Amino acid sequence: MYEVEIKVPADLETVRDRLRELDADPGETRRQRDVYYDAPHREFAETDEALRIRRETTIDGGDTHRDASTDGEAVRLTYKGPLLDGDSKTRTEHETDVADGDELAGVLDGLGFDPAATVEKRREYWRFEEFTVALDAVEGVGEFVEIEREVDAEDAIDPTREAAIGTLARLGLDAADQVRTSYLGLLLADG
Amino acid sequence: MYEVEIKVPADLETVRDRLRELDADPGETRRQRDVYYDAPHREFAETDEALRIRRETTIDGGDTHRDASTDGEAVRLTYKGPLLDGDSKTRTEHETDVADGDELAGVLDGLGFDPAATVEKRREYWRFEEFTVALDAVEGVGEFVEIEREVDAEDAIDPTREAAIGTLARLGLDAADQVRTSYLGLLLADG
Repeated sequence: MYEVEIKVPADLETVRDRLRELDADPGETRRQRDVYYDAPHREFAETDEALRIRRETTIDGGDTHRDASTDGEAVRLTYKGPLLDGDSKTRTEHETDVADGDELAGVLDGLGFDPAATVEKRREYWRFEEFTVALDAVEGVGEFVEIEREVDAEDAIDPTREAAIGTLARLGLDAADQVRTSYLGLLLADG
Repeated sequence: MYEVEIKVPADLETVRDRLRELDADPGETRRQRDVYYDAPHREFAETDEALRIRRETTIDGGDTHRDASTDGEAVRLTYKGPLLDGDSKTRTEHETDVADGDELAGVLDGLGFDPAATVEKRREYWRFEEFTVALDAVEGVGEFVEIEREVDAEDAIDPTREAAIGTLARLGLDAADQVRTSYLGLLLADG
Protein backbone atom coordinates (compact mmCIF):
# COMPACT_ATOMS: atom_id res chain seq x y z
CA MET A 1 0.00 0.00 0.00
CA TYR A 2 1.31 3.42 -0.98
CA GLU A 3 -0.03 6.78 0.05
CA VAL A 4 -0.13 9.55 -2.53
CA GLU A 5 -0.39 12.81 -0.66
CA ILE A 6 0.08 16.49 -1.51
CA LYS A 7 -0.12 19.25 1.10
CA VAL A 8 -0.41 22.92 0.16
CA PRO A 9 -1.04 26.11 2.15
CA ALA A 10 -4.61 27.32 1.59
CA ASP A 11 -7.31 29.65 2.80
CA LEU A 12 -9.73 27.10 4.22
CA GLU A 13 -12.86 29.22 3.91
CA THR A 14 -12.25 29.68 0.18
CA VAL A 15 -11.58 25.96 -0.34
CA ARG A 16 -14.64 25.00 1.70
CA ASP A 17 -16.85 27.26 -0.45
CA ARG A 18 -15.38 25.70 -3.58
CA LEU A 19 -15.97 22.14 -2.27
CA ARG A 20 -19.62 23.04 -1.60
CA GLU A 21 -20.02 24.53 -5.09
CA LEU A 22 -18.59 21.33 -6.56
CA ASP A 23 -21.00 19.25 -4.47
CA ALA A 24 -18.22 17.39 -2.63
CA ASP A 25 -19.20 15.16 0.32
CA PRO A 26 -18.43 16.62 3.74
CA GLY A 27 -17.15 14.11 6.32
CA GLU A 28 -16.26 14.38 9.96
CA THR A 29 -14.45 17.25 11.60
CA ARG A 30 -11.97 16.24 14.27
CA ARG A 31 -9.74 17.93 16.77
CA GLN A 32 -6.35 16.22 16.90
CA ARG A 33 -3.80 16.84 19.62
CA ASP A 34 -0.45 15.20 18.86
CA VAL A 35 2.23 15.01 21.53
CA TYR A 36 5.67 14.11 20.20
CA TYR A 37 8.18 12.58 22.60
CA ASP A 38 11.92 12.81 23.07
CA ALA A 39 13.68 9.54 23.90
CA PRO A 40 16.09 9.10 26.81
CA HIS A 41 18.57 7.06 24.76
CA ARG A 42 18.42 8.46 21.23
CA GLU A 43 18.22 11.82 19.50
CA PHE A 44 15.08 11.31 17.39
CA ALA A 45 15.90 14.40 15.29
CA GLU A 46 19.13 12.66 14.23
CA THR A 47 17.77 9.12 13.89
CA ASP A 48 14.72 10.43 11.98
CA GLU A 49 12.31 8.55 14.24
CA ALA A 50 9.17 9.81 15.95
CA LEU A 51 7.03 8.68 18.86
CA ARG A 52 3.62 10.25 19.17
CA ILE A 53 0.43 10.06 21.21
CA ARG A 54 -2.56 11.38 19.26
CA ARG A 55 -5.77 12.27 21.07
CA GLU A 56 -8.66 12.82 18.73
CA THR A 57 -12.25 13.90 19.23
CA THR A 58 -14.92 14.13 16.59
CA ILE A 59 -16.52 17.56 16.87
CA ASP A 60 -18.85 17.28 13.88
CA GLY A 61 -20.14 14.09 12.27
CA GLY A 62 -20.63 15.65 8.81
CA ASP A 63 -22.87 13.62 6.53
CA THR A 64 -21.91 10.30 8.08
CA HIS A 65 -24.43 8.20 9.96
CA ARG A 66 -22.36 8.07 13.14
CA ASP A 67 -23.55 10.17 16.01
CA ALA A 68 -20.55 12.33 16.75
CA SER A 69 -21.85 13.26 20.20
CA THR A 70 -21.42 9.68 21.41
CA ASP A 71 -17.76 9.57 20.40
CA GLY A 72 -15.32 9.89 23.25
CA GLU A 73 -11.65 10.70 22.89
CA ALA A 74 -9.74 8.27 20.71
CA VAL A 75 -6.10 7.75 21.61
CA ARG A 76 -3.47 6.32 19.30
CA LEU A 77 0.20 5.49 19.81
CA THR A 78 2.42 5.78 16.74
CA TYR A 79 6.09 4.99 16.17
CA LYS A 80 7.74 6.05 12.93
CA GLY A 81 11.09 4.50 12.17
CA PRO A 82 13.86 6.01 10.04
CA LEU A 83 13.58 5.95 6.23
CA LEU A 84 14.57 2.47 5.07
CA ASP A 85 16.64 3.75 2.16
CA GLY A 86 17.45 7.07 0.58
CA ASP A 87 15.53 6.53 -2.64
CA SER A 88 12.12 5.57 -1.38
CA LYS A 89 10.13 7.36 1.28
CA THR A 90 9.37 4.02 2.94
CA ARG A 91 9.65 3.87 6.71
CA THR A 92 8.58 1.41 9.37
CA GLU A 93 5.45 2.55 11.11
CA HIS A 94 3.69 0.90 14.03
CA GLU A 95 0.42 2.19 15.35
CA THR A 96 -2.29 1.03 17.72
CA ASP A 97 -5.32 2.49 19.42
CA VAL A 98 -5.02 2.70 23.18
CA ALA A 99 -7.80 2.83 25.78
CA ASP A 100 -6.32 5.33 28.23
CA GLY A 101 -4.12 8.21 27.05
CA ASP A 102 -3.17 9.37 30.55
CA GLU A 103 -1.97 5.90 31.53
CA LEU A 104 -0.03 5.61 28.27
CA ALA A 105 1.60 8.99 28.94
CA GLY A 106 2.43 7.65 32.43
CA VAL A 107 4.14 4.59 30.92
CA LEU A 108 6.27 6.79 28.61
CA ASP A 109 7.08 9.18 31.47
CA GLY A 110 8.11 6.27 33.70
CA LEU A 111 10.43 4.98 30.97
CA GLY A 112 12.09 8.40 30.67
CA PHE A 113 10.44 9.69 27.48
CA ASP A 114 9.60 13.41 27.61
CA PRO A 115 6.86 15.32 25.78
CA ALA A 116 8.81 17.56 23.40
CA ALA A 117 6.26 19.29 21.19
CA THR A 118 2.50 19.40 20.72
CA VAL A 119 0.77 19.87 17.38
CA GLU A 120 -2.93 20.76 17.63
CA LYS A 121 -5.21 21.02 14.67
CA ARG A 122 -8.80 21.06 13.56
CA ARG A 123 -9.13 18.67 10.63
CA GLU A 124 -12.18 18.71 8.40
CA TYR A 125 -12.59 15.78 6.01
CA TRP A 126 -14.16 16.00 2.58
CA ARG A 127 -14.54 13.40 -0.15
CA PHE A 128 -14.01 14.69 -3.69
CA GLU A 129 -13.17 12.93 -6.98
CA GLU A 130 -11.99 9.72 -5.25
CA PHE A 131 -9.65 11.68 -3.00
CA THR A 132 -9.78 12.40 0.69
CA VAL A 133 -9.38 16.13 1.13
CA ALA A 134 -8.44 17.32 4.63
CA LEU A 135 -8.79 20.98 5.59
CA ASP A 136 -6.29 21.49 8.41
CA ALA A 137 -6.15 24.51 10.70
CA VAL A 138 -2.91 23.94 12.62
CA GLU A 139 -2.39 26.05 15.74
CA GLY A 140 0.67 28.25 15.51
CA VAL A 141 1.42 27.04 11.98
CA GLY A 142 -1.40 27.96 9.59
CA GLU A 143 -4.03 26.56 7.25
CA PHE A 144 -3.36 23.74 4.81
CA VAL A 145 -5.16 21.37 2.50
CA GLU A 146 -3.97 17.77 2.25
CA ILE A 147 -5.23 15.67 -0.61
CA GLU A 148 -4.60 11.94 -0.49
CA ARG A 149 -5.44 8.52 -1.80
CA GLU A 150 -3.99 5.09 -1.12
CA VAL A 151 -2.91 2.96 -4.06
CA ASP A 152 -2.04 -0.73 -4.15
CA ALA A 153 0.59 -0.83 -6.86
CA GLU A 154 3.75 1.19 -7.29
CA ASP A 155 2.94 1.97 -10.95
CA ALA A 156 -0.30 3.63 -9.81
CA ILE A 157 1.62 6.29 -7.88
CA ASP A 158 2.45 8.61 -10.81
CA PRO A 159 -1.00 8.61 -12.47
CA THR A 160 -2.64 9.11 -9.06
CA ARG A 161 -0.33 12.02 -8.35
CA GLU A 162 -1.29 13.55 -11.71
CA ALA A 163 -4.97 13.10 -10.82
CA ALA A 164 -4.36 14.72 -7.41
CA ILE A 165 -2.75 17.73 -9.12
CA GLY A 166 -5.83 18.08 -11.34
CA THR A 167 -8.23 17.78 -8.41
CA LEU A 168 -6.25 20.40 -6.47
CA ALA A 169 -6.46 22.73 -9.48
CA ARG A 170 -10.26 22.36 -9.54
CA LEU A 171 -10.22 23.46 -5.89
CA GLY A 172 -8.23 26.56 -6.89
CA LEU A 173 -4.98 25.20 -5.45
CA ASP A 174 -1.58 24.80 -7.07
CA ALA A 175 0.41 21.60 -6.40
CA ALA A 176 3.57 23.65 -7.09
CA ASP A 177 3.02 25.18 -3.63
CA GLN A 178 3.51 21.73 -2.07
CA VAL A 179 4.94 21.75 1.46
CA ARG A 180 6.91 18.59 2.28
CA THR A 181 7.75 19.49 5.86
CA SER A 182 5.55 17.90 8.56
CA TYR A 183 3.43 20.11 10.81
CA LEU A 184 5.83 19.24 13.64
CA GLY A 185 8.75 20.38 11.49
CA LEU A 186 6.92 23.60 10.57
CA LEU A 187 6.05 24.25 14.22
CA LEU A 188 9.64 23.70 15.39
CA ALA A 189 11.09 25.77 12.52
CA ASP A 190 8.75 28.60 13.49
CA GLY A 191 9.42 28.41 17.23
CA MET B 1 -6.57 1.66 47.22
CA TYR B 2 -4.46 -1.15 48.69
CA GLU B 3 -4.25 -4.72 47.50
CA VAL B 4 -4.05 -7.45 50.09
CA GLU B 5 -2.69 -10.54 48.39
CA ILE B 6 -1.23 -13.85 49.49
CA LYS B 7 0.19 -16.39 47.04
CA VAL B 8 0.96 -19.99 48.05
CA PRO B 9 1.97 -23.12 46.13
CA ALA B 10 -0.98 -25.50 45.82
CA ASP B 11 -2.31 -28.56 44.08
CA LEU B 12 -5.01 -26.93 41.96
CA GLU B 13 -7.20 -30.01 41.57
CA THR B 14 -7.43 -30.41 45.35
CA VAL B 15 -8.22 -26.71 45.85
CA ARG B 16 -10.83 -26.75 43.05
CA ASP B 17 -12.60 -29.72 44.66
CA ARG B 18 -12.59 -27.91 47.99
CA LEU B 19 -14.01 -24.71 46.42
CA ARG B 20 -16.84 -26.78 44.90
CA GLU B 21 -17.58 -28.47 48.24
CA LEU B 22 -17.75 -25.03 49.87
CA ASP B 23 -20.12 -23.81 47.13
CA ALA B 24 -17.76 -21.06 45.99
CA ASP B 25 -18.66 -19.15 42.78
CA PRO B 26 -16.59 -20.09 39.74
CA GLY B 27 -15.63 -17.20 37.46
CA GLU B 28 -13.83 -16.99 34.17
CA THR B 29 -10.81 -18.99 33.18
CA ARG B 30 -8.22 -17.07 31.18
CA ARG B 31 -4.99 -17.78 29.41
CA GLN B 32 -2.48 -15.02 30.08
CA ARG B 33 0.75 -14.59 28.13
CA ASP B 34 3.00 -11.94 29.64
CA VAL B 35 6.04 -10.73 27.73
CA TYR B 36 8.51 -8.76 29.85
CA TYR B 37 10.85 -6.37 28.11
CA ASP B 38 14.44 -5.27 28.62
CA ALA B 39 15.13 -1.56 28.11
CA PRO B 40 17.89 -0.19 25.88
CA HIS B 41 18.92 2.49 28.40
CA ARG B 42 18.35 0.95 31.83
CA GLU B 43 18.89 -2.35 33.60
CA PHE B 44 15.35 -3.04 34.84
CA ALA B 45 16.61 -5.76 37.20
CA GLU B 46 18.66 -3.09 38.96
CA THR B 47 16.15 -0.24 38.80
CA ASP B 48 13.35 -2.59 39.93
CA GLU B 49 11.09 -1.56 37.05
CA ALA B 50 9.12 -3.72 34.66
CA LEU B 51 7.53 -3.26 31.25
CA ARG B 52 5.05 -5.88 30.16
CA ILE B 53 2.63 -6.71 27.37
CA ARG B 54 -0.11 -9.07 28.55
CA ARG B 55 -2.24 -10.92 26.03
CA GLU B 56 -5.28 -12.53 27.57
CA THR B 57 -8.01 -14.75 26.21
CA THR B 58 -11.03 -16.01 28.10
CA ILE B 59 -11.21 -19.75 27.59
CA ASP B 60 -14.19 -20.44 29.89
CA GLY B 61 -16.82 -17.93 30.93
CA GLY B 62 -17.62 -19.69 34.22
CA ASP B 63 -20.94 -18.67 35.78
CA THR B 64 -20.80 -15.17 34.36
CA HIS B 65 -23.32 -13.96 31.83
CA ARG B 66 -20.69 -13.00 29.29
CA ASP B 67 -20.34 -15.21 26.29
CA ALA B 68 -16.70 -16.23 26.41
CA SER B 69 -16.71 -17.30 22.78
CA THR B 70 -17.22 -13.71 21.63
CA ASP B 71 -14.15 -12.50 23.53
CA GLY B 72 -11.13 -11.82 21.38
CA GLU B 73 -7.64 -11.37 22.70
CA ALA B 74 -7.30 -8.55 25.20
CA VAL B 75 -3.95 -6.77 25.22
CA ARG B 76 -2.66 -4.63 28.06
CA LEU B 77 0.51 -2.57 28.46
CA THR B 78 1.85 -2.23 32.00
CA TYR B 79 4.73 -0.25 33.45
CA LYS B 80 5.77 -0.83 37.05
CA GLY B 81 8.08 1.73 38.56
CA PRO B 82 10.55 1.17 41.39
CA LEU B 83 9.33 0.96 45.01
CA LEU B 84 8.72 4.52 46.20
CA ASP B 85 10.29 3.91 49.60
CA GLY B 86 11.78 1.02 51.49
CA ASP B 87 9.02 0.68 54.08
CA SER B 88 5.92 0.48 51.93
CA LYS B 89 5.42 -1.76 48.97
CA THR B 90 4.01 1.17 47.00
CA ARG B 91 5.17 1.58 43.44
CA THR B 92 4.04 3.64 40.48
CA GLU B 93 2.04 1.58 38.06
CA HIS B 94 0.61 2.66 34.72
CA GLU B 95 -1.57 0.39 32.67
CA THR B 96 -3.82 0.65 29.64
CA ASP B 97 -5.63 -1.66 27.30
CA VAL B 98 -4.33 -1.60 23.76
CA ALA B 99 -6.13 -2.54 20.54
CA ASP B 100 -3.31 -4.28 18.66
CA GLY B 101 -0.64 -6.28 20.49
CA ASP B 102 1.51 -6.89 17.40
CA GLU B 103 1.66 -3.17 16.60
CA LEU B 104 2.47 -2.38 20.23
CA ALA B 105 5.29 -4.96 20.16
CA GLY B 106 6.46 -3.26 16.94
CA VAL B 107 6.58 0.12 18.68
CA LEU B 108 8.67 -1.31 21.55
CA ASP B 109 10.95 -3.14 19.12
CA GLY B 110 11.45 0.05 17.08
CA LEU B 111 12.40 1.92 20.24
CA GLY B 112 15.00 -0.73 21.10
CA PHE B 113 13.15 -2.65 23.83
CA ASP B 114 13.71 -6.41 23.67
CA PRO B 115 11.41 -9.22 24.83
CA ALA B 116 13.35 -10.78 27.71
CA ALA B 117 11.06 -13.38 29.28
CA THR B 118 7.59 -14.80 28.78
CA VAL B 119 5.33 -15.98 31.58
CA GLU B 120 2.37 -18.07 30.45
CA LYS B 121 -0.36 -19.22 32.73
CA ARG B 122 -3.87 -20.54 32.91
CA ARG B 123 -5.75 -18.52 35.53
CA GLU B 124 -9.06 -19.72 36.92
CA TYR B 125 -11.03 -17.21 38.98
CA TRP B 126 -13.26 -18.11 41.93
CA ARG B 127 -15.16 -15.91 44.33
CA PHE B 128 -15.15 -17.11 47.95
CA GLU B 129 -15.81 -15.32 51.27
CA GLU B 130 -15.42 -11.83 49.73
CA PHE B 131 -12.07 -12.75 48.25
CA THR B 132 -10.99 -13.31 44.69
CA VAL B 133 -9.24 -16.66 44.53
CA ALA B 134 -7.09 -17.29 41.46
CA LEU B 135 -5.92 -20.81 40.60
CA ASP B 136 -2.77 -20.31 38.54
CA ALA B 137 -1.03 -23.01 36.49
CA VAL B 138 2.20 -21.27 35.43
CA GLU B 139 4.19 -22.93 32.64
CA GLY B 140 7.65 -23.95 33.74
CA VAL B 141 7.02 -22.72 37.29
CA GLY B 142 4.19 -24.65 38.93
CA GLU B 143 0.72 -24.34 40.47
CA PHE B 144 -0.26 -21.57 42.86
CA VAL B 145 -3.28 -20.06 44.52
CA GLU B 146 -3.50 -16.28 44.90
CA ILE B 147 -6.09 -14.86 47.24
CA GLU B 148 -6.76 -11.15 47.12
CA ARG B 149 -9.04 -8.28 48.01
CA GLU B 150 -8.72 -4.54 47.55
CA VAL B 151 -9.21 -2.30 50.58
CA ASP B 152 -9.73 1.46 50.69
CA ALA B 153 -8.06 2.34 53.98
CA GLU B 154 -4.61 1.52 55.29
CA ASP B 155 -6.00 0.34 58.64
CA ALA B 156 -8.07 -2.29 56.82
CA ILE B 157 -4.93 -4.04 55.58
CA ASP B 158 -4.13 -6.05 58.72
CA PRO B 159 -7.67 -7.32 59.45
CA THR B 160 -8.12 -8.20 55.77
CA ARG B 161 -4.85 -10.10 55.82
CA GLU B 162 -6.06 -12.03 58.88
CA ALA B 163 -9.32 -12.83 57.07
CA ALA B 164 -7.35 -14.00 54.00
CA ILE B 165 -5.29 -16.36 56.19
CA GLY B 166 -8.52 -17.84 57.58
CA THR B 167 -10.04 -18.24 54.12
CA LEU B 168 -6.87 -19.93 52.86
CA ALA B 169 -7.04 -22.33 55.82
CA ARG B 170 -10.62 -23.31 54.91
CA LEU B 171 -9.26 -24.16 51.44
CA GLY B 172 -6.65 -26.43 53.04
CA LEU B 173 -3.82 -23.95 52.43
CA ASP B 174 -1.29 -22.49 54.84
CA ALA B 175 -0.42 -18.77 54.55
CA ALA B 176 2.96 -19.63 56.10
CA ASP B 177 3.87 -21.11 52.70
CA GLN B 178 3.53 -17.63 51.16
CA VAL B 179 5.72 -16.99 48.11
CA ARG B 180 6.63 -13.32 47.67
CA THR B 181 8.59 -13.72 44.45
CA SER B 182 6.76 -12.86 41.22
CA TYR B 183 6.16 -15.58 38.62
CA LEU B 184 8.74 -13.81 36.44
CA GLY B 185 11.24 -13.99 39.31
CA LEU B 186 10.45 -17.67 39.89
CA LEU B 187 10.82 -18.40 36.17
CA LEU B 188 14.17 -16.62 35.93
CA ALA B 189 15.48 -18.19 39.17
CA ASP B 190 14.57 -21.58 37.75
CA GLY B 191 16.10 -21.01 34.31
